[in-house]
Amino acid sequence: MKKPSLYTVLSPALLHLYDVSNTVVVVIDVLRATSTIATALYNGAKEIIPVDSVERCIQLGKELACITAGERDGQIAPGLQYGNSSFEYPKEFIAGKTLVLTTTNGTKLLHMALAKGATEIITGSFLNLSAVCDHLLQLNKNVILGCAAWKDRVNMEDSLLAGAVVSRVKHHFDVNCDASHMAENLYHMAKNDLYEFMKSNDASHYHRLTNFGLERDIRHCLTPDLANILPEYSNGKLIIQQ
Amino acid sequence: MKKPSLYTVLSPALLHLYDVSNTVVVVIDVLRATSTIATALYNGAKEIIPVDSVERCIQLGKELACITAGERDGQIAPGLQYGNSSFEYPKEFIAGKTLVLTTTNGTKLLHMALAKGATEIITGSFLNLSAVCDHLLQLNKNVILGCAAWKDRVNMEDSLLAGAVVSRVKHHFDVNCDASHMAENLYHMAKNDLYEFMKSNDASHYHRLTNFGLERDIRHCLTPDLANILPEYSNGKLIIQQ
Repeated sequence: MKKPSLYTVLSPALLHLYDVSNTVVVVIDVLRATSTIATALYNGAKEIIPVDSVERCIQLGKELACITAGERDGQIAPGLQYGNSSFEYPKEFIAGKTLVLTTTNGTKLLHMALAKGATEIITGSFLNLSAVCDHLLQLNKNVILGCAAWKDRVNMEDSLLAGAVVSRVKHHFDVNCDASHMAENLYHMAKNDLYEFMKSNDASHYHRLTNFGLERDIRHCLTPDLANILPEYSNGKLIIQQ
Repeated sequence: MKKPSLYTVLSPALLHLYDVSNTVVVVIDVLRATSTIATALYNGAKEIIPVDSVERCIQLGKELACITAGERDGQIAPGLQYGNSSFEYPKEFIAGKTLVLTTTNGTKLLHMALAKGATEIITGSFLNLSAVCDHLLQLNKNVILGCAAWKDRVNMEDSLLAGAVVSRVKHHFDVNCDASHMAENLYHMAKNDLYEFMKSNDASHYHRLTNFGLERDIRHCLTPDLANILPEYSNGKLIIQQ
């Protein structure tokens, strides 16, 4: 029996090269959108509404009387209430609530996948790595691992997460995709200490976030399975897939 | 003193994200355009005219009464005289002659770099790795390592060559570019046996070319410095930079 295909798309600017219809798209934005999404849902958030602008976030926050969150340049964006750190969303705070989250790279990719007719859109991070892999293995459908990247430029951490997924699921897929093999090799080099790998390679996002004093956030976002649930995007909202 | 910048662009579809003006662009199409270009010039070809279509190749071949070459799907394209293998261009045959070569991925990237105002366009392959690196170190200008990729999809061999260049020149550049760091890590994993690395990772181009019986070509194209000259693109032609 023919195996389903698996592709890794290292930047949203390359997504048009692939057939997204009839495909499960895993949106990956490790630092930090999809990590924050996993954490907030794991800690009991009712739903997360990802939006692509601060204005839309403020507007929806008013309409729904819910929590607004998002950062620009490492700071809480003016007009919003919270930032983009997992540590801001403990159970005591977020359980049962709706969060409107504005992110740039991750939300853009999510909307692209939707527009191109993806069968299912889920979000992946190290925090929910096993949940993502288990789901992909169970589904037996074509998969695209979509890296949100940074303003369309390929980045290290999203590639590493793609590689981690590839390493776990590849035998169940037809992986005719150099980007997947490259990501997997990179992951194998890095896996013993992902943080140190990011640091020693002076990964651009490591550099950017440590300038804001966010080492603890980075370490958290590189730790597997701390919030091991499966966020699914449906009707404009991210909820835990049951 | 501020170092010049170095970026690796893993696909032509990402080139628009970078400032190409005032930049030296290294066009990389390891299997096999830029390897063939290095070999033919090393063996004494007067000049190589890269064109993007078989029709244009035939037309120019007639006008200039010169050699035409190019492949589609691993076969010499109908209407052309020669293929895209270094072994077709020994000194006895090619010395002093003009070659019109049609390639898809490499030529496209070359024309894009030209249109975007690159200061200088050179071609890189493992066959002329040292010549490229020595030149970049000497110039002290901003550099883009441009991978020709495969129909805009990221490929293994061009990324490996980019990584090889990064590993040799990085200390002289400001490398704020995850793709460069990723390529360099990949190269370090692969460098002891590039052929075996391509094979064991089932690189898509390895797969494609071995289906045509071209293992010998691949091995050749992965061997450093066998044709260690510097091809420069100027006025529509590739010639050896003196």
